[in-house]
Amino acid sequence: MRSTITCRSIGVLVTTLLAGLAVPGRAVAQADPLPSWNDGAAKQAIVRFVKATTDQSSATFVPPDARIAAFDQDGTTWVEHPMYTQVVYCLERVAVLARARPELRHIEPFKTVLSGNRAAMARLTMKDLQTILAATLTGMTVGDFKADVGQWLASAKHPRWDRLYTELTYEPMLEVMRYLRDNGFKTYIVTGGGQDFVRVFSDTVYEIPREQVVGTMWGTTYGYAKDGKPVLTKEPKLLLNDDNAGKPQGIYLMVGRRPVAAFGNSVGDRQMLEYTGGGDGARLMMLVLHDDAQREYAYGPAQGLPVTKVGTFPQTLYDEAQKKDWTIISMKNDWKRIFPFE
Amino acid sequence: MRSTITCRSIGVLVTTLLAGLAVPGRAVAQADPLPSWNDGAAKQAIVRFVKATTDQSSATFVPPDARIAAFDQDGTTWVEHPMYTQVVYCLERVAVLARARPELRHIEPFKTVLSGNRAAMARLTMKDLQTILAATLTGMTVGDFKADVGQWLASAKHPRWDRLYTELTYEPMLEVMRYLRDNGFKTYIVTGGGQDFVRVFSDTVYEIPREQVVGTMWGTTYGYAKDGKPVLTKEPKLLLNDDNAGKPQGIYLMVGRRPVAAFGNSVGDRQMLEYTGGGDGARLMMLVLHDDAQREYAYGPAQGLPVTKVGTFPQTLYDEAQKKDWTIISMKNDWKRIFPFE
Repeated sequence: MRSTITCRSIGVLVTTLLAGLAVPGRAVAQADPLPSWNDGAAKQAIVRFVKATTDQSSATFVPPDARIAAFDQDGTTWVEHPMYTQVVYCLERVAVLARARPELRHIEPFKTVLSGNRAAMARLTMKDLQTILAATLTGMTVGDFKADVGQWLASAKHPRWDRLYTELTYEPMLEVMRYLRDNGFKTYIVTGGGQDFVRVFSDTVYEIPREQVVGTMWGTTYGYAKDGKPVLTKEPKLLLNDDNAGKPQGIYLMVGRRPVAAFGNSVGDRQMLEYTGGGDGARLMMLVLHDDAQREYAYGPAQGLPVTKVGTFPQTLYDEAQKKDWTIISMKNDWKRIFPFE
Repeated sequence: MRSTITCRSIGVLVTTLLAGLAVPGRAVAQADPLPSWNDGAAKQAIVRFVKATTDQSSATFVPPDARIAAFDQDGTTWVEHPMYTQVVYCLERVAVLARARPELRHIEPFKTVLSGNRAAMARLTMKDLQTILAATLTGMTVGDFKADVGQWLASAKHPRWDRLYTELTYEPMLEVMRYLRDNGFKTYIVTGGGQDFVRVFSDTVYEIPREQVVGTMWGTTYGYAKDGKPVLTKEPKLLLNDDNAGKPQGIYLMVGRRPVAAFGNSVGDRQMLEYTGGGDGARLMMLVLHDDAQREYAYGPAQGLPVTKVGTFPQTLYDEAQKKDWTIISMKNDWKRIFPFE
């Protein structure tokens, strides 16, 4: 008898081992893969999409290698207000830069940034901002940049929550990423932010390896350090602005496949969702609407929400989403919980 | 007794299942992973490198996510003589192009290409070639391009072997790719050729998914087809020339990690090997020397081999390889067999 039981135990072990193998073609049964989501149209759309694309008997089955899901970052997977995290980094870097190059204290737009005068800073133009980005994101080796961003992220805190920026990710979106990966999807970050900025933390924060980060791309030059070792230095040469039409372009460049699912929250994600929707079969296009001033922020101006320059969600985008069957995620109504630390 | 035997059988099954799981941290025991290689310094260098990087007890152990191996394509993983396959494609496309735009028959360099005069064609300059590449590789949607390349590859044949170009891969290099992957390495093609040209067949020919192809990158524009569907159109806007210093730049852009192994065959691979060698720990840098006119081609001009403009391997590169402990692969002496069809 005893050996029979042992056999059965081993049989169970074999079954368990087989079940544990990553079989991308099969939906993994689990209690509730999206516990931070309220039951509603958004949650249902996600679950329905995963079933439609992973059930082999479904007419809309998607083979594993085509299961590409693209996530915008700022405002979609983490907080972007009152200002994009990378821009905060760049503004804070200006002080560091001015220590090495004191003449910047007398040159605009650096002078304004160093003044700390928030009203004056709010009046900086897009051109000013680009000057600041170029000055603070280029000129160093890629290794020094990575180390500096890592160091900054380990201590800089968001003023409202007094938490690290990397803690301010949205738990419901982390759940969606995991749920998709558990079902054989390859998840990508597709961000207007700097590609190598986001790569510094994509693995630890999103469990997304750096090669699956598509972002705004700057060129590098190849040269040699004093010890003769080869180094890459970041250059102020924009290769691709991964925003608006740049998002499908960046996806083509980095992935070479059209996504079947895309998540965004602002006008900069419009073309990515449209491009995703342009393919055949089951598709999932979702937009996060920030309508929760209490727990996070409220901005649009869609649906009468306050106007913003950071993560603009115009009414035209809202109307297009309705027309094209893109799903709106209401932060207020669809999300039980916003942050992992809650 | 019978049930005991069954238990043992299941035990063996469990062991087999466990052994079959992809455990990237562990070298997979097998008879000879490189049967097309003669025993010699090159083969030994590969085996030694894999052991050094995958043995957890080794001081030079490399964690799985850092196991990046980069392979040049033309002349390293498939035949590049008498002319790069993609250039043959472009030259043959000129005739197709001239049917749609007859005026090209009277404009250089198209006139020369259409003449079929090989002596005149051999005199075309690099600028002429770039004009031809721009004309034949841009202006179409990315979908049309993919379809056209696929169609061409399915019938165009290499004049010497009367075989499809995709059959002219080097079996020993396919074995190295498989051997590395079996040991948890992620293999990339890093080619001076067009990124989206190579992506058309990388999966079927090399078992390398298209997102692991780094190549020369051209921009696209985002627009709409007549039916209103979004399309990307290839543009004559060079984003990155993935050759020479462009190879480490392309790797930084597409992968964001320094490779630990790199394989090339010409001066265009020099910086990629140098960059790979610039990291700490165990490294493998290899250069294929085409010294086998009988079975393939012989060209250098290193080691007194014939001079060539296609896949130049100068003596300075050979000397640098010797000095830096990069391993030379002699096609004649190291490879038992060249092609899979042999």
